[in-house]
Amino acid sequence: MNTIGKILALTTFGESHGPAMGGVLDGVPAGMDIDLASLQRFVDRRRTGQTIGASSRNEGDVVEILSGIWQGKTLGTPIGFVVRNHDARSADYEHLAHCYRPNHADYSWQTKYAIRDHRGGGRASARETVARVVAGGIAIQLLERVGISITATVAQVGNCHDAGQMQRVIADAVAQGDTLGGIISCVVKGVPAGLGEPVFGKLHAQLAAAMMSIPSVHGFDYGDGFDMAARRGSEVMDRWKRRGDGTIGTVTNHSGGIQGGISNGEDIVMRVAFKPVPTLMRDLPAIDCQGNDVTLHPRGRHDACVLPRAVPVVEAMAALVILDNYLIKKTNVLL
Amino acid sequence: MNTIGKILALTTFGESHGPAMGGVLDGVPAGMDIDLASLQRFVDRRRTGQTIGASSRNEGDVVEILSGIWQGKTLGTPIGFVVRNHDARSADYEHLAHCYRPNHADYSWQTKYAIRDHRGGGRASARETVARVVAGGIAIQLLERVGISITATVAQVGNCHDAGQMQRVIADAVAQGDTLGGIISCVVKGVPAGLGEPVFGKLHAQLAAAMMSIPSVHGFDYGDGFDMAARRGSEVMDRWKRRGDGTIGTVTNHSGGIQGGISNGEDIVMRVAFKPVPTLMRDLPAIDCQGNDVTLHPRGRHDACVLPRAVPVVEAMAALVILDNYLIKKTNVLL
Amino acid sequence: MNTIGKILALTTFGESHGPAMGGVLDGVPAGMDIDLASLQRFVDRRRTGQTIGASSRNEGDVVEILSGIWQGKTLGTPIGFVVRNHDARSADYEHLAHCYRPNHADYSWQTKYAIRDHRGGGRASARETVARVVAGGIAIQLLERVGISITATVAQVGNCHDAGQMQRVIADAVAQGDTLGGIISCVVKGVPAGLGEPVFGKLHAQLAAAMMSIPSVHGFDYGDGFDMAARRGSEVMDRWKRRGDGTIGTVTNHSGGIQGGISNGEDIVMRVAFKPVPTLMRDLPAIDCQGNDVTLHPRGRHDACVLPRAVPVVEAMAALVILDNYLIKKTNVLL
Amino acid sequence: MNTIGKILALTTFGESHGPAMGGVLDGVPAGMDIDLASLQRFVDRRRTGQTIGASSRNEGDVVEILSGIWQGKTLGTPIGFVVRNHDARSADYEHLAHCYRPNHADYSWQTKYAIRDHRGGGRASARETVARVVAGGIAIQLLERVGISITATVAQVGNCHDAGQMQRVIADAVAQGDTLGGIISCVVKGVPAGLGEPVFGKLHAQLAAAMMSIPSVHGFDYGDGFDMAARRGSEVMDRWKRRGDGTIGTVTNHSGGIQGGISNGEDIVMRVAFKPVPTLMRDLPAIDCQGNDVTLHPRGRHDACVLPRAVPVVEAMAALVILDNYLIKKTNVLL
Repeated sequence: MNTIGKILALTTFGESHGPAMGGVLDGVPAGMDIDLASLQRFVDRRRTGQTIGASSRNEGDVVEILSGIWQGKTLGTPIGFVVRNHDARSADYEHLAHCYRPNHADYSWQTKYAIRDHRGGGRASARETVARVVAGGIAIQLLERVGISITATVAQVGNCHDAGQMQRVIADAVAQGDTLGGIISCVVKGVPAGLGEPVFGKLHAQLAAAMMSIPSVHGFDYGDGFDMAARRGSEVMDRWKRRGDGTIGTVTNHSGGIQGGISNGEDIVMRVAFKPVPTLMRDLPAIDCQGNDVTLHPRGRHDACVLPRAVPVVEAMAALVILDNYLIKKTNVLL
Repeated sequence: MNTIGKILALTTFGESHGPAMGGVLDGVPAGMDIDLASLQRFVDRRRTGQTIGASSRNEGDVVEILSGIWQGKTLGTPIGFVVRNHDARSADYEHLAHCYRPNHADYSWQTKYAIRDHRGGGRASARETVARVVAGGIAIQLLERVGISITATVAQVGNCHDAGQMQRVIADAVAQGDTLGGIISCVVKGVPAGLGEPVFGKLHAQLAAAMMSIPSVHGFDYGDGFDMAARRGSEVMDRWKRRGDGTIGTVTNHSGGIQGGISNGEDIVMRVAFKPVPTLMRDLPAIDCQGNDVTLHPRGRHDACVLPRAVPVVEAMAALVILDNYLIKKTNVLL
Repeated sequence: MNTIGKILALTTFGESHGPAMGGVLDGVPAGMDIDLASLQRFVDRRRTGQTIGASSRNEGDVVEILSGIWQGKTLGTPIGFVVRNHDARSADYEHLAHCYRPNHADYSWQTKYAIRDHRGGGRASARETVARVVAGGIAIQLLERVGISITATVAQVGNCHDAGQMQRVIADAVAQGDTLGGIISCVVKGVPAGLGEPVFGKLHAQLAAAMMSIPSVHGFDYGDGFDMAARRGSEVMDRWKRRGDGTIGTVTNHSGGIQGGISNGEDIVMRVAFKPVPTLMRDLPAIDCQGNDVTLHPRGRHDACVLPRAVPVVEAMAALVILDNYLIKKTNVLL
Repeated sequence: MNTIGKILALTTFGESHGPAMGGVLDGVPAGMDIDLASLQRFVDRRRTGQTIGASSRNEGDVVEILSGIWQGKTLGTPIGFVVRNHDARSADYEHLAHCYRPNHADYSWQTKYAIRDHRGGGRASARETVARVVAGGIAIQLLERVGISITATVAQVGNCHDAGQMQRVIADAVAQGDTLGGIISCVVKGVPAGLGEPVFGKLHAQLAAAMMSIPSVHGFDYGDGFDMAARRGSEVMDRWKRRGDGTIGTVTNHSGGIQGGISNGEDIVMRVAFKPVPTLMRDLPAIDCQGNDVTLHPRGRHDACVLPRAVPVVEAMAALVILDNYLIKKTNVLL
């Protein structure tokens, strides 16, 4: 349940204010060079404290590899890793032990397990994404070897689509104690045709599951996505063309690089929609476990907009899915 | 790869013009009454030939249960079933053996397997959804026993949101040899709080994967979905309330019944976006396997808009996911 | 739960006296020739009525392929198949509806599901192995293409190790209304070094699970197996040698072709121990569901010794495991 | 591939001379008390240096829990844990980098991954079992809550079956620079009837896979096991009886507590056969990667007989399988 992937399988663990976050990345092909400094830089991209409106919690987030990589190369064995939780001010969350905040996982989690580590959101905290980024960062390095690259960007913050204005829009929300959602778009280049499974394992279905599993995500589409719904077939037809090198491609890419659930060699294009952060920096109406209304005065550290920090998380999840399917593809033929 | 679900697991098989479609639904709890006549009626809802713009292929689609149900009750053993393919005019598709149609899976499939049953789309045909509907229909009957109901509706066809106008809009498209996409919305009522897994198995991530695996689907969201991206946190806050019976609920439902990936007891609300059918009833620009342009004159039977027929498919996929998570929930506690 | 295998995954269904047995074999590489006549002959090898002491039930067991094979070649899609149950005399089993026979699954099954198809053992019948043989027969044909062959033989019946005497030993048991167990040994030749997963997926652990899942099996070992326990390290050391072609092998094969859970290129050698058939052809002491002693007078058709019929079942299970690992091996490297 | 279990799933990682061994135990029911001191004592039982003939490597093996347990209770979230490798004298293994030792995983591993951490056997070392013992120790504590207990014992060392003589027999082998195998028997008491899955997931098939995955294991059987093969049906019949409390049981237990793959409420009894340790303390004939014969003079630390240390490993694996099936059983019914 805390595992994703079939051949390349990531299992993660960790509560926000426990000793550490971590994971096991199994199924990584053997003998591949891993640049650990580069991996650390990738992980640093999701760190907080770097942009306006981001949480002031600053973990350092040093990746410690415990297995599976030796002398800079993958062994084919599972890569175990941890990232310690150093800067956890649990006392800031004491008042939440018996409260359910709006739009948080407090209540649903309590009904599921009848127990809950309320400190910093426990396992429901977006801090769990650090393990995704470590694993995804490894996957990205392998994909580079086969000419596949992944780039996510913030396409929308609130209702602002202009990248130059986004920091200002976030600052405005912060000033009002409010928060923002947005959209991250992601493009995967260099994916060979033929990845993905035809029915339940359609490549876009796997990508959807991966992206929707990121905290705060409320929507996913690929290619022309939701806009497809309002278009006629004649308007979104991706005509074929023969490229100079004799291979086949399409003139347009309404299909987003996937047809019938299988990559067609064009860029894979998708969008991931995030809800606004639920913790406002103003009095919050909550309810306690007896059903009494209570008002919270949020302390702790919270992002006003998670989009900038979520960019490497989206890239990481894309990388895990694409590499897994790259490996599965090898099993489609016997000889 | 042709299996979905963890405890309740559906495996399907079948090519559009092969002898039969079918599946195995494993993990169904024992001792439950199944009304086979009602199941057949549910399956009949996805049959063609019932609405304007729908394919004229008419299979009958008689469900034959081969195991797992005896004397009207589930045995706890896997339910094997088949639906025969009677009305397959394979000759209609002969000319497609060496062609790649636009926006179809022909090319991507060929690159994956280097072999392909081109007749009627083979396994890439939406005919595979008949197996989903059989299995989902069984799941729906079990969910009814625990007070859970699922209703999908066509919310949009092309850019028409008015249900009373949809048949006319489809008729217009048919008249022009064109096709339409649309949006199906789905509501699940009566889901107890506590279903779903916190990280990779978030309930909405599982629903996304299930819905995105339906042929032609290009987008998924839940609650306020993509609209969430443009809203501020203060605008989408679902305030808690204590209900008359002492239980806790929310005043609004921007969250769509799921918080932190776990159901919160409110209605689960989601949308599924479909692309327009790729086969227009006009000359189609295709390419052959040598890269030469060819023009196709579509024959065979094709829907101009799959939305009406996809409604029970969406319900079926929702039912499979919800029932699976209902069963998994039982394992969260030992005693 | 009714599925085995990771990439090559077999899911089966069917009760002994239901309409049909069947299965879905997913993950079969595409484009491979399948000789259906040869497959049918392989399936016929497990049919009853061919040897002394075997059940007189004779099904014909005609394999009907429903998908995944077209024009004699695999498509890469799941192979669905059924074998109809024609000759089921359910009335013979009426008296067993409320009885628990000794050494049968009646009682344990009833406690698990609180419902049970008692006719012919329901899903607990060894008739379920027909689906294994269909799937395994397909796997065997693929393994032949890569030079891997599998041969199982009856090594022991009761305490008779002499193949020439086995028919007589079985006849003696039949004459006394008694039954016999035995041992089947299995050799897999031509397996390349490097198959199997190091820790929980050791090749012999997978083989053990596969063999122990065959009805009536009570033990499994490989190489020198249980005899290893009594030997000293110096006695079972497989010395390395360089073969004429420069490759490396071992002089002896106490290790049974597997070291550290991974094949080493030598023959894989294993043994599978079967208990005697529980249904004797004499009065049987049973108990009813109220706990009252009852005496059964077995009718129906039962083997006195299943070993001869189980030979292709053992071969089938070995083939499924080896082919699955052959495919997984492809994912150990990226390039 | 480094994961075992369906609902209760253990994933492990770690190389013998890497920074740490560890694992993630997912699916543990929430709200259960865990006694960490007791868990550490259980883990200490597999430590070396405690008996004659055991390796002198002494790690301390301090279990560090990183997640999933808070204030002494399970949270329902994955339990991440590590055990550091402190006392690894890698230089002792330098000479093995390009050698394949007899009966070790060196060669098969090299053919699989084309890279290998040769130090102390890398991931092929029995040191990986420390992660199994941590996870199994947690499972044992939960099983105690539902009245299930597990006891493994050394039943045979070499050809000695007398527990009082075993230390002497091992000492003799050590004196001769030789090694011994043996048999561990394991009894699980208090298992309710109804655990296990009927076909591929038979309880004994799962136990076999779990036990055969322990390093050095070459055989598994349950109940009368391999002896069943030589017996007649009339000799191994477990007659039913009604117990004083009205429940049903058997007079004898040739079936080993499992019938048709499902527990019947009697003690589950099984045997696990270990090969002798391959590293003798005398000159060893090996081969280098060019195929030249080389003679090794074993250094490093090696057990002469692993049986005493393997006892908690067998108990741990039994506990993981039984608890997993205990949880799965909950899903057999809907209400």
